[in-house]
Amino acid sequence: MSDAPAVPGTARRGREARRAERSHAPAVASRQILRRIPLYELLDAEGIERIHDASMTILEEIGVEFRDAEALELWRKAGASVAGQRVRIGRELAMALLASIPPSYVQHARNGSRSVTIGGDAMVLAPTYGSPFVRDLEGKRRYGTLGDLRNFVKLAWASPHLDHSGGVICEPVDVPVPKRHLDMLYSHLKFSDKPFMGMVTAPERAADCVRMAEIAFGAEFVDANTVMTSVVNCNSPLVWDGIMLGALKVYARANQAVLVTPFIMAGAMAPAATAGAIAQLNAEVVAGLAFTQLVRKGAPMVYGSFVTTVSMRSGAPMMGTPEPAQMIYVCAQLARRYGVPVRTGGMLCGAKIADAQAAYESMQTMLPTLLAGANFVLHSAGWLEAGLVAGYGKFVMDLEQIAMLRRFARGLDLSDEGLALDAVREVGPGGHYLGCAHTLRHYTDAFFMPELADNNSYEQWEAEGGTDLDARATARARRLLDEIVPPPLDPAIDEALLDFIHRRKAELPDAVT
Amino acid sequence: MSDAPAVPGTARRGREARRAERSHAPAVASRQILRRIPLYELLDAEGIERIHDASMTILEEIGVEFRDAEALELWRKAGASVAGQRVRIGRELAMALLASIPPSYVQHARNGSRSVTIGGDAMVLAPTYGSPFVRDLEGKRRYGTLGDLRNFVKLAWASPHLDHSGGVICEPVDVPVPKRHLDMLYSHLKFSDKPFMGMVTAPERAADCVRMAEIAFGAEFVDANTVMTSVVNCNSPLVWDGIMLGALKVYARANQAVLVTPFIMAGAMAPAATAGAIAQLNAEVVAGLAFTQLVRKGAPMVYGSFVTTVSMRSGAPMMGTPEPAQMIYVCAQLARRYGVPVRTGGMLCGAKIADAQAAYESMQTMLPTLLAGANFVLHSAGWLEAGLVAGYGKFVMDLEQIAMLRRFARGLDLSDEGLALDAVREVGPGGHYLGCAHTLRHYTDAFFMPELADNNSYEQWEAEGGTDLDARATARARRLLDEIVPPPLDPAIDEALLDFIHRRKAELPDAVT
Repeated sequence: MSDAPAVPGTARRGREARRAERSHAPAVASRQILRRIPLYELLDAEGIERIHDASMTILEEIGVEFRDAEALELWRKAGASVAGQRVRIGRELAMALLASIPPSYVQHARNGSRSVTIGGDAMVLAPTYGSPFVRDLEGKRRYGTLGDLRNFVKLAWASPHLDHSGGVICEPVDVPVPKRHLDMLYSHLKFSDKPFMGMVTAPERAADCVRMAEIAFGAEFVDANTVMTSVVNCNSPLVWDGIMLGALKVYARANQAVLVTPFIMAGAMAPAATAGAIAQLNAEVVAGLAFTQLVRKGAPMVYGSFVTTVSMRSGAPMMGTPEPAQMIYVCAQLARRYGVPVRTGGMLCGAKIADAQAAYESMQTMLPTLLAGANFVLHSAGWLEAGLVAGYGKFVMDLEQIAMLRRFARGLDLSDEGLALDAVREVGPGGHYLGCAHTLRHYTDAFFMPELADNNSYEQWEAEGGTDLDARATARARRLLDEIVPPPLDPAIDEALLDFIHRRKAELPDAVT
Repeated sequence: MSDAPAVPGTARRGREARRAERSHAPAVASRQILRRIPLYELLDAEGIERIHDASMTILEEIGVEFRDAEALELWRKAGASVAGQRVRIGRELAMALLASIPPSYVQHARNGSRSVTIGGDAMVLAPTYGSPFVRDLEGKRRYGTLGDLRNFVKLAWASPHLDHSGGVICEPVDVPVPKRHLDMLYSHLKFSDKPFMGMVTAPERAADCVRMAEIAFGAEFVDANTVMTSVVNCNSPLVWDGIMLGALKVYARANQAVLVTPFIMAGAMAPAATAGAIAQLNAEVVAGLAFTQLVRKGAPMVYGSFVTTVSMRSGAPMMGTPEPAQMIYVCAQLARRYGVPVRTGGMLCGAKIADAQAAYESMQTMLPTLLAGANFVLHSAGWLEAGLVAGYGKFVMDLEQIAMLRRFARGLDLSDEGLALDAVREVGPGGHYLGCAHTLRHYTDAFFMPELADNNSYEQWEAEGGTDLDARATARARRLLDEIVPPPLDPAIDEALLDFIHRRKAELPDAVT
């Protein structure tokens, strides 16, 4: 976390210039969660070494498939053993490559005051990602649209509890697949000034995202700074496929960060054992991260993990159960061992609606995410139905829970004012604190006061409609969307972006061929 | 945790006899949560000392009111400064008294295999306590009855996830106040063979509970062993009232354990500051615990804390917010500093119904409860509406969440079988694990598989009624109550209990006078 953010659009060449920029940069620390609380280390150092060792054995003996000719060539040159598409990587080589990944980096936003640090004690929260469906503003389940994506971008922008605009918050199913990435990236640039993600569904789409970022930030700035953090998934077990590697190469070459993330359903795509699933996932991440450093040494990258288990009864993925929580803790420990920022966790659930199941599962995942020390949290708000659905109500209710975790992460005030002995002296046995001097000084900031959670009397709650949290949260989403005025975008940049999109849409087919 | 449980009804006099009993006692470890995971220490040792020091300053300078003549006399004899009802206790005296509280004890059940250890790495979970209302088996809110209490006792008995039958799970409002305790205690003895709590609403009612325990376990056994763990509350700030002290004295003299528990709504009954509220609470607990050792040195006692904050907007108590979680962690650390078992946390919420609010708040409280290292957890299942309501659906859904925490507490299997390298070798890149040898060995036990949480496809969930978790949990409660066959009770003991109750009911008035 040595870097303060620079202000985009003022890029000059070189180290000197960047230092100059930084010295004028606004501080962003207050916007991000900075953990001032201890981490929870589920395993001791010996346990972590045991899993690390198993992963290295997997890399050395079993190897990983890289389904990309250039990748194989890069690995061969680096000294790995390459047989067909199978790459076996010695642990010394793997560790040497990981060493050039920065332990933290700044992702710049077009509004410099919204730039974020990813790594160290900082925690960046981004919305849910990739849902084809939404639970809409009337609570109905239907396919997502570009309008929904824009709504979610606006909700994320307006919330002080999300640091990041995310990427494919929902799939805009009303836009042809080959053109969606253009509209999605534009939505993040137009309706938000928070940092965002690039698209990864094809290398040329990733390249379009880099071009659009260059239009918005300036090409020199983008080459020297990170303005996107995207996500690619491993095809577990142990396969990095051509499309993902293609997108990964585009971003790494452009100095743009990627969450290098196996998406594991343990029992199907990894062993039916918690430690074993982590060992395989860790081998996959290490292979992917190491590869990025062959593409561009020093490119910022994030150790990613997305973990669920599979029900051996139904084959369905399970979230909010004990094993994914264990995996979250251990993955974060492994990432710290390697000195790489970590993405894990989120508000995950398998529930179809934002009921008690959704909330139990989400919190059984999100609290470990905080205590594990995650640096980047995708799916922090809105996730439903194993990711198939982005819910408006769920989005808004998750924000309030995040606000509480944010507050928890600040730790305790142990100053004399925090210990409040003067208040105890003033009130004494049998008194009450509502009117004492200390309370008058602190009644607005002493304790977190939720807005959506109803703590009124039963009678008052009933008189106000006897609603559940989902109903209140969905109503709040409707109200917010009526009120939000997105941040302005420089008209020249806006026009240049629209020109680019217009041109690319003319070139691209409407259907995937 | 040096003691294994003895088998009730086989009591012989003295140390020798008890040792003989223990050697024949069945192991209970497998029934209880034994934490094989690290604790989460929110504060460092210096922080804990700062709060301890503030508490000791409160005890020494401000003091605590003991509204009981005998208590004041005991304190005077012990060397405390007594002025009116105000007792000022030097820190050396307080610490010396706490030193005789056992760091752990066994609470015996009438079925010896269900006896539990309270302290150390063990965690005992008990149902919700004290609700005048229930959300019934049709989801309706109404006053609780003796029938409801019996239902909850049966549900707690039948669950492998609760170790303890609890006490006033709901108030049996259909039984006169002066007689309720008799029917409640009988319900726990008749419809369960798990450990239970005594009643505390008046010293003579506590005495009745001790008599009934003597009938069930034998008077000698009860004097030599702990068969009840009850709960008394401090009248915060800094007042121990006559009724609570009366009940506390009855149980301490009878060698029965008590959760010595301030019930704090910080901002009203304690300072509007997290650290300050804990400092006062800690002073109250230390005073209460120290007092018990004046009554009977060595009596088993538990450091209790029940913490909420007060909304400065509405005056309503708030649960599941960050500050109560912080208090849970710190109280557990303080109890460990004093070497006393700790009661804290639970599945607390302010929600009126078992919706997402209820689940978020409950888990924001219960996960800290586990990681803090609580030894006794009251309100582990069924709590709704700030404790005003015991819900059947909430009860059953909480049990499934507890089952997950129980599993999490087992920690990771880092053996070769847990690391599953043979499975990775067998499957290799691009394969799948569903049919491999390791999976076939572990498909039933690899991962927790919930029964109430629905992880099926949307289409299947919809075809099955599209229910929320509360509806499924309430239906399960109905089904369970149809099926549960309570454990047998020795007819001679049953008859003796009924005789005692009959006699006492004839003596007691129907209304409080």
